Amino acid sequence: MAYEFKAIRRVEFSDTDMAGIMHYANYFHFMETAENAFFRSLGFCIVGNPGLPVSWPRVRAECNYWAPLYFEDEVEIHLLVSGKKSKALTYLFKFRKLNAAPPLEVARGHLTVVCVTVDGGKMAACAMPEVMSDKIQVAPAELLR
Amino acid sequence: MAYEFKAIRRVEFSDTDMAGIMHYANYFHFMETAENAFFRSLGFCIVGNPGLPVSWPRVRAECNYWAPLYFEDEVEIHLLVSGKKSKALTYLFKFRKLNAAPPLEVARGHLTVVCVTVDGGKMAACAMPEVMSDKIQVAPAELLR
Amino acid sequence: MAYEFKAIRRVEFSDTDMAGIMHYANYFHFMETAENAFFRSLGFCIVGNPGLPVSWPRVRAECNYWAPLYFEDEVEIHLLVSGKKSKALTYLFKFRKLNAAPPLEVARGHLTVVCVTVDGGKMAACAMPEVMSDKIQVAPAELLR
Amino acid sequence: MAYEFKAIRRVEFSDTDMAGIMHYANYFHFMETAENAFFRSLGFCIVGNPGLPVSWPRVRAECNYWAPLYFEDEVEIHLLVSGKKSKALTYLFKFRKLNAAPPLEVARGHLTVVCVTVDGGKMAACAMPEVMSDKIQVAPAELLR
Repeated sequence: MAYEFKAIRRVEFSDTDMAGIMHYANYFHFMETAENAFFRSLGFCIVGNPGLPVSWPRVRAECNYWAPLYFEDEVEIHLLVSGKKSKALTYLFKFRKLNAAPPLEVARGHLTVVCVTVDGGKMAACAMPEVMSDKIQVAPAELLR
Repeated sequence: MAYEFKAIRRVEFSDTDMAGIMHYANYFHFMETAENAFFRSLGFCIVGNPGLPVSWPRVRAECNYWAPLYFEDEVEIHLLVSGKKSKALTYLFKFRKLNAAPPLEVARGHLTVVCVTVDGGKMAACAMPEVMSDKIQVAPAELLR
Repeated sequence: MAYEFKAIRRVEFSDTDMAGIMHYANYFHFMETAENAFFRSLGFCIVGNPGLPVSWPRVRAECNYWAPLYFEDEVEIHLLVSGKKSKALTYLFKFRKLNAAPPLEVARGHLTVVCVTVDGGKMAACAMPEVMSDKIQVAPAELLR
Repeated sequence: MAYEFKAIRRVEFSDTDMAGIMHYANYFHFMETAENAFFRSLGFCIVGNPGLPVSWPRVRAECNYWAPLYFEDEVEIHLLVSGKKSKALTYLFKFRKLNAAPPLEVARGHLTVVCVTVDGGKMAACAMPEVMSDKIQVAPAELLR
């Protein structure tokens, strides 16, 4: 059973905006990177698994920004499963700037995603496949603070 | 005194992802389009106004997704000022798909932005310039539902 | 028979980078906007037309940059069909900054796209459907200079 | 003296479009990743080096696409310096899909960048600083094929 994953990304030039910092929408790309790597770490793909025809559209996304990220900053995105229902998962993401001494938490995000089947372009919520559900659990409360 | 603005954007091919729908992070680009157009409608730019050396970094961003948006959908982004403090503004954004009959609210977002001065790369929160504050007010409660 | 289309886009905050100008990759988004609007102007969609199961992947993209574009610049993207083969189209794109006096050509791009059918994820080049081919011609030479 | 660098990036979900493949504009992001890492490998930053107040805007960008890239593909971006003038550098980029057997070259790009100083927002071409020029050379011809 897994409840966390740590991904690392560097802030690219194209992630910045004219304010000289990482554009706020790009934090959601970083969250997705960690989410997809979490699924890979469990042996799944976020989409297109043979025999597991489910997809995970987002129903809620949130980010709180405490300090900016700059070009070439190295960022750890710490995913923690903070909620689990039969058809939905909620993740907490802690963004830590690694090239600070000590490493600094600069932002915190949340995603709620729903398990769906897609039939002819139409999405319908469904229970998470058991092989996935069996491997994912909510993180201990002390990690979610 | 102004409290709202309606911007329209079409979903571009590059806004979509392999799920065939608008990528969830791009809703934050659409919110920003409406926010910047709101400032222009008041005679300001969101950055770089002569004599008004302030910028508006985001401290919180949120979006709730109810139905997907597809390539070429025409979307109205209705910005409403939902909160106003001396140093911060909060916006509500209602996303309406116009090419639906009747037009359909598909998502709702929020941004909280803080007024800062930037000195040598360092941002410091400051009171909103009076010429801006004089023109912006919170929307009537019935519009914020 | 059509050979051109003019689209207009404003440079958004999220189109800029820390150099304070529009990021160079985003010119390719603007080209695509004009291309897709050109297809719409002919009564087609660039993908997903009922009875016309073709798609147009790019095989070559190029842009030459002469002067930067800044936040809030209004840009005309003038698409001209510069080449037409049975299975491929080439476009020339002239970028004009409209909020300059006189309007200034700041960049010029090219795209070559190939008509394909997609079967089970596999793309195969095919002749452009006649209803499309009948409506598209190469622009006069003097416009392509 | 250096003339090459190999960077590796994975195709993220947000890099894809509704055609199910990496969006063509994103190859230019990958090129930039390799270019910036090349500069880091030489001890420089592409912008903001203390005492080296130069920046490298693009004057030409090109990409040729031979086969698509898909979500989660692992891509090597092999940068090779293909041209060097006092004020400009040209790079060749070879995109290799590593999770193919054998690894497959799927695209090839080119960037021409010019060394500029920026004064009050105005860019002016200038000779590349000697400490940079001393470390960069054109790749052997056989690698540029």
